[in-house]
Amino acid sequence: AGPREVWKKGGRLLSVLLAVNVLLLACTLVSGGAFNKVAVYDTDVFALLTAMMLLAALWIAFYLLRTSRCRGAVPHRDAHAGPIWLRGGLVLFGICTLILDVFKTGYYSSFFECQSAIKILHPIIQALFVIVQTYFLWVSAKDCIHTHLDLTRCGLMFTLTTNLAIWMAAVVDESVHQAHSYSSSANTTSHTRLAPDLGRAGSAAGGDPCSCSTALCQVFQQGCFYLHPFNIEYSLFASTMLYVMWKNVGRLLVSAHGHGHTPSRVSVFRETFFAGPILGLMLFVVGLAVFIIYEVQVSGEGGRTRQALVTYYSFNIVCLGLMTLVSLSGSVIYRFDRRAMDQHKNPTRTLDVALLMGAALGQYAISYYSIVAVVVGTPRDLLGALNLAYSLLMIAQHTFQNVFIIESLHRGPPGATPHKTPPKEPCQGLTFANLDALHVLPACPSTPRLGSPNSETPQEAMAIISVPRCHWRRRCLKDISLFLLLCNIILWIMPAFGARPHFSNTVEVDFYGYSLWAAIVNICLPFGIFYRMHAVSSLLEVYVLS
Amino acid sequence: AGPREVWKKGGRLLSVLLAVNVLLLACTLVSGGAFNKVAVYDTDVFALLTAMMLLAALWIAFYLLRTSRCRGAVPHRDAHAGPIWLRGGLVLFGICTLILDVFKTGYYSSFFECQSAIKILHPIIQALFVIVQTYFLWVSAKDCIHTHLDLTRCGLMFTLTTNLAIWMAAVVDESVHQAHSYSSSANTTSHTRLAPDLGRAGSAAGGDPCSCSTALCQVFQQGCFYLHPFNIEYSLFASTMLYVMWKNVGRLLVSAHGHGHTPSRVSVFRETFFAGPILGLMLFVVGLAVFIIYEVQVSGEGGRTRQALVTYYSFNIVCLGLMTLVSLSGSVIYRFDRRAMDQHKNPTRTLDVALLMGAALGQYAISYYSIVAVVVGTPRDLLGALNLAYSLLMIAQHTFQNVFIIESLHRGPPGATPHKTPPKEPCQGLTFANLDALHVLPACPSTPRLGSPNSETPQEAMAIISVPRCHWRRRCLKDISLFLLLCNIILWIMPAFGARPHFSNTVEVDFYGYSLWAAIVNICLPFGIFYRMHAVSSLLEVYVLS
Repeated sequence: AGPREVWKKGGRLLSVLLAVNVLLLACTLVSGGAFNKVAVYDTDVFALLTAMMLLAALWIAFYLLRTSRCRGAVPHRDAHAGPIWLRGGLVLFGICTLILDVFKTGYYSSFFECQSAIKILHPIIQALFVIVQTYFLWVSAKDCIHTHLDLTRCGLMFTLTTNLAIWMAAVVDESVHQAHSYSSSANTTSHTRLAPDLGRAGSAAGGDPCSCSTALCQVFQQGCFYLHPFNIEYSLFASTMLYVMWKNVGRLLVSAHGHGHTPSRVSVFRETFFAGPILGLMLFVVGLAVFIIYEVQVSGEGGRTRQALVTYYSFNIVCLGLMTLVSLSGSVIYRFDRRAMDQHKNPTRTLDVALLMGAALGQYAISYYSIVAVVVGTPRDLLGALNLAYSLLMIAQHTFQNVFIIESLHRGPPGATPHKTPPKEPCQGLTFANLDALHVLPACPSTPRLGSPNSETPQEAMAIISVPRCHWRRRCLKDISLFLLLCNIILWIMPAFGARPHFSNTVEVDFYGYSLWAAIVNICLPFGIFYRMHAVSSLLEVYVLS
Repeated sequence: AGPREVWKKGGRLLSVLLAVNVLLLACTLVSGGAFNKVAVYDTDVFALLTAMMLLAALWIAFYLLRTSRCRGAVPHRDAHAGPIWLRGGLVLFGICTLILDVFKTGYYSSFFECQSAIKILHPIIQALFVIVQTYFLWVSAKDCIHTHLDLTRCGLMFTLTTNLAIWMAAVVDESVHQAHSYSSSANTTSHTRLAPDLGRAGSAAGGDPCSCSTALCQVFQQGCFYLHPFNIEYSLFASTMLYVMWKNVGRLLVSAHGHGHTPSRVSVFRETFFAGPILGLMLFVVGLAVFIIYEVQVSGEGGRTRQALVTYYSFNIVCLGLMTLVSLSGSVIYRFDRRAMDQHKNPTRTLDVALLMGAALGQYAISYYSIVAVVVGTPRDLLGALNLAYSLLMIAQHTFQNVFIIESLHRGPPGATPHKTPPKEPCQGLTFANLDALHVLPACPSTPRLGSPNSETPQEAMAIISVPRCHWRRRCLKDISLFLLLCNIILWIMPAFGARPHFSNTVEVDFYGYSLWAAIVNICLPFGIFYRMHAVSSLLEVYVLS
């Protein structure tokens, strides 16, 4: 069952065109539904999403049936794809999404009479889709499929598009909810460009005849609000795994040995100095306390917003400053670490790097807009200074953390020798000698190799000559990755569960006007939140690999 | 002077981080400057752009000095990079930009007293930058630089960022100008979110004390308006060439022969059936007439807008329909053409494909928003039907043209044998035999090749066994590419020189509201215009290669 594909890009082109068109259609409807005056109702959006999920679930079922029958369909498995923490996270978020679907069904059933049927059907179909998709990704995330290439590519791209559409709809929904709560608190609905559509806002705030008045309905409504972030993350996790599967369709892996170097699972925390996890845990607990105080002070009556903001910014400045320093010291450690770089082709890692860099753009953009507002704007006080420091440190932290993570992910595997402390001098000399040899070689004329362009062999050659690392460095790296991991979790929790200093603070809102600033934050913040999630999973990988 | 780079991605990471940060800063200032209420003035934007252009010009001068001194700095040249039509287009647009700069200097000098100095300094520095950069790209677009890798990467990325910032500023400027002319014609400034900043609009419309009253100043002002598109295209052309240079930094090309297969320049039009160019020219002339009629009828008084729109849409529907059919027939011809695909790594081509696909997104988005507005919106008349057909055909045309161009670019080179009509049967048999052989080969264990992962050899092997094409097919393809090329030029001219049926037509404006629809069109249309430009240059390449 050798692949007969003459031109891989042709098959990919077809599926990308399908995905782009479906995604743009969904994007049009979702964004149209979010705006006030536009005559696109949310039932249209729900109907589209439901149809897409049904189709995707059908394709998945068809795919699972086919591969279980045909033995030669999956000749290789990509060891890098779908690592256990990604799949574990997927299952976790999938379960939360299922709970969300139960809540949603309960919520909409509370006023069954005055809702269209699609609103109750939608969460039920979504639950079905989540179950089917999670099983599918758990079983076949590592597959390199070699039958019905074009059909499989189109199916995967369609499923990916469905996830992205769900993600878009959820993000827009959250923005609308947030804009509504802002405008109802400020009582100035006139200038909000993102003001919520009446039908939707009414059903959430109890303005229409079928109001959410029972206690159970209130619980459902609150639950939906807190479970939303998990649904968003689930869609993004599934999307990344589907993308890697799509990249792996028709891929040839010549040798299936050596790459999936399974880490030793015996000593989990024994290999650290404990400093990283302890400091991280302290910051985590303090951060949780700060977050709760902030939420209480901002939502409560009386002008304690300023105090809350000072606390919030101070904690964040300390946390971001420490993270920047720690990431930097990690990069410095790598300057002394002469391990060979892993030049091996790896779609999962390429995607990880692209996502880290791309998702960081969201927070970058918010920070730059804040900086311009603070620097150009006139009132310069303590809050402005704190905001400026916070924005600058945010940029520095994202930059240095990305550099550290990306460099970590590209380090070669540990090598075959055990991790004893080796004599230093000869090992460094050996590395240099070998690096020289490695760089002279490509100039030689090489024999013709046809087909698959990913050369597996250099990586193996490098793995053999890679030098065993010194033990204290390794421990340091593990400490650093654990510390960063815990900090990223607390920095994820704050925005994901509703802390919005961007709006409590009046500098940017006054400078840009509410509508522009809300558009910036609502587009960019989801990427920032996703960045934290993704950094956590990447740091877990760094911890295991280093 | 062999490359000593241990980890190419590390160097790239650094320069990308620099570019992202500078670009976001520029984006913040430019977008902030475009909004009414925001206290960022256009002088701030001009100052930033001027500083960036000065820095970039200095770096270019430094680079040119260094490479002229150091002989071994450029060991290889990428034959695919910077083809003659790209460099020719760059020079052409560069000259137009220089004229624009003269006009701008003249315009701002007309009321010298009440302008800040930076507004006159800016076009002068821009002229200097354009001259230096055009010379630099003309001379060294093909270089694969191997000295000071990190510095060169950062310099190239910074220059690229400068071009993108200029592009953004120009696009925003045009949007503001257009929003101003809309609001002044409709006399409803209240609901325009993109209403122009007072200082800027005043200087353009004669509202402030230093008004543009002399005839010369009026000529300068009009000239600036029509020359703007060339500046936008210049920046984009320069950006693509700089990106290819950046990708080529530190690249190893093992063999420098065979790839830059120079086409025979003796017979330019002799190899076509003349049908393509003649039909294309007819459409071009008719399109020009339609465009002039449209502009006259829309800008003139009296309600002839409807008639103008019917003419405009009818012409576009015919033109797009023909283009779709022709692209499809081109793809059908390729189904019978058994030439081997060129699997060779080629950054220029990868970028071309990505730009074609990415730029098409702009027009896709506009079309989908139009479709939703027409389908969901209530008043269904002739204009709505025409608009719907136009949008659907626009999507189909972009899709099929992209498929045709991308497949054309991936076809293998013509091969060494002369283009006589060969006997058909044996040649096809030979192709199949060879294709089989090609696909069995990669499964064999290959010898280790270290360093540069782009294997040059398969492509050469394919070139040798590639079959001489049948003559009538080749002629057909040349006809098709010339026809599409001429159609793309006329479809470029219309929006680039001011045709905006999106706003003359009231369906979308009524459905989405002016502010949302203006934001969609102003963000997406520049990509659509760039798509036409880029398709023209790609089709020229297809014409020469086929």
